[in-house]
Amino acid sequence: MTEDFVQTPEVQALLDRASGVESDAGDARLKAITRDLVEAIMKAIVKHDVSESEFWAAIKYFQDSGDEFGLIVPGVGLEHFMDLVMDARDAEAGRSGGTPRTIEGPLYVAGAPLVEGEANLTDDADDTDTLYMNGRVAGPDGEPVEGAILHVWHANSKGFYSHFDPTGTQSPFNNRRRIRIGPDGRYAFHSRMPSGYSVPPGGPTDRFMKALGRHGNRPAHVHFFVEAPGYRTLTTQINFGDDPFAGDDFAFATREGLLPVPNRQGDSAYIAFDFELQRAEVSDEEHFSARVRAEA
Amino acid sequence: MTEDFVQTPEVQALLDRASGVESDAGDARLKAITRDLVEAIMKAIVKHDVSESEFWAAIKYFQDSGDEFGLIVPGVGLEHFMDLVMDARDAEAGRSGGTPRTIEGPLYVAGAPLVEGEANLTDDADDTDTLYMNGRVAGPDGEPVEGAILHVWHANSKGFYSHFDPTGTQSPFNNRRRIRIGPDGRYAFHSRMPSGYSVPPGGPTDRFMKALGRHGNRPAHVHFFVEAPGYRTLTTQINFGDDPFAGDDFAFATREGLLPVPNRQGDSAYIAFDFELQRAEVSDEEHFSARVRAEA
Repeated sequence: MTEDFVQTPEVQALLDRASGVESDAGDARLKAITRDLVEAIMKAIVKHDVSESEFWAAIKYFQDSGDEFGLIVPGVGLEHFMDLVMDARDAEAGRSGGTPRTIEGPLYVAGAPLVEGEANLTDDADDTDTLYMNGRVAGPDGEPVEGAILHVWHANSKGFYSHFDPTGTQSPFNNRRRIRIGPDGRYAFHSRMPSGYSVPPGGPTDRFMKALGRHGNRPAHVHFFVEAPGYRTLTTQINFGDDPFAGDDFAFATREGLLPVPNRQGDSAYIAFDFELQRAEVSDEEHFSARVRAEA
Repeated sequence: MTEDFVQTPEVQALLDRASGVESDAGDARLKAITRDLVEAIMKAIVKHDVSESEFWAAIKYFQDSGDEFGLIVPGVGLEHFMDLVMDARDAEAGRSGGTPRTIEGPLYVAGAPLVEGEANLTDDADDTDTLYMNGRVAGPDGEPVEGAILHVWHANSKGFYSHFDPTGTQSPFNNRRRIRIGPDGRYAFHSRMPSGYSVPPGGPTDRFMKALGRHGNRPAHVHFFVEAPGYRTLTTQINFGDDPFAGDDFAFATREGLLPVPNRQGDSAYIAFDFELQRAEVSDEEHFSARVRAEA
């Protein structure tokens, strides 16, 4: 039995019926995508001689893992792949420059306090060093970006994010702020140093990664959205260049240009990092993607 | 941008890392399947120019639809495809004959009462006709099968199954029995006539089917497992040949040889149906597949 089995008239007719391509109703784009994805699954079933029990085990795995799709999707490289696709589309459109994008991850929460000036991100006690970070938000010609808002979020020293902390000990919006940037385009904040984290031990992502011979660790990092009128919203993050997992991030979020090494002095660590935004070509680019996010 | 993008060294390296093929640890089979499936998703993203927002909408859809995976999987034809695959594997192995297999669906519950003789399946009042069904369970040479157990389950006249009835009005195991077949191989039961059903209105499967220009209806039907020592367990169902959806089942479960037309007389309907089992070639075939099922 070879993959040609999927090309038999009976299976092709099943695909046509299942994806609704025989019907005038419905969404032609969704039909075409559904047909291709179902056919790809069929090919994998035949190629790998997947048994009925294996098939149902896989369905059950995804059925039970909804809470961790936000980790599984980056873990299998698909979230990073979307970045590569957007980079390639930009290149085709002759667009380049600016701070590299990288994955958002599943832990942004809308509605963090909007602050100005030198901002403190951390509300809760956390026995670790202080991170001082500062730099500029500029446009492609080096011009200061007016009216920019820098969204920042990161983990605490245990690797947990507020609103998603299994220990339940963090205040709402701890280590989360929206910083309104002044007309000079400069920003500065301090907070308690984040640590890297692993996916929840024993959970679906952890079990999947182990079965692939992999781990589920990320280096310590800080997430950003940068938005400003007239500019393209940037989704990015810095990962600490001296973290043991800086070169081996299970989520594939680390990218060249986004791996600053903190300047560690006593109980403090300093990172200088400038953001460069692209100009928006259509107003849609001034917004985030339409991903559904947590609200608090 | 073409599907060749997925063949670039950067994306191929991402696939190698993400599927763990670079590591000696883990399960080589799972790695290979994971790599192929993730690559197939990547190809669909590029081919259909899937946007970031569309990508996350799709992830969110599956994340929120776990409860209905048991309907989505047959709805997109994959459960029926597994039957076609098993048929083809049988044909390659020179195995044929017997009652056709068809999909199990998600609504079997283990532990139904084990009964003997002419069985009544229905415990609850249900204002509809009575179904009388009978026939033989035989082997490939027409021999009566000894020690067979016929698992029967079907919906009530509202199209709802006990243990899964959103109205909460059915007794446990209503319209569910395990019938122990006597040495003559004959079985007989009666019950209240089932109706066809639609997937839950407004739910994930219903919305998906509508977006594909399809419906989510099944014809009235009765499910069976037939198991017996020395024989291959059969998963099948009969669909009523005179149901309006007999030729247009959203789950693709209807098959030639499994569409008897009930003989309707007054308040009664009669179906005569014989099961023919294949002999088991390995003892594993005497069991169900290892799909996880509800227990009560």
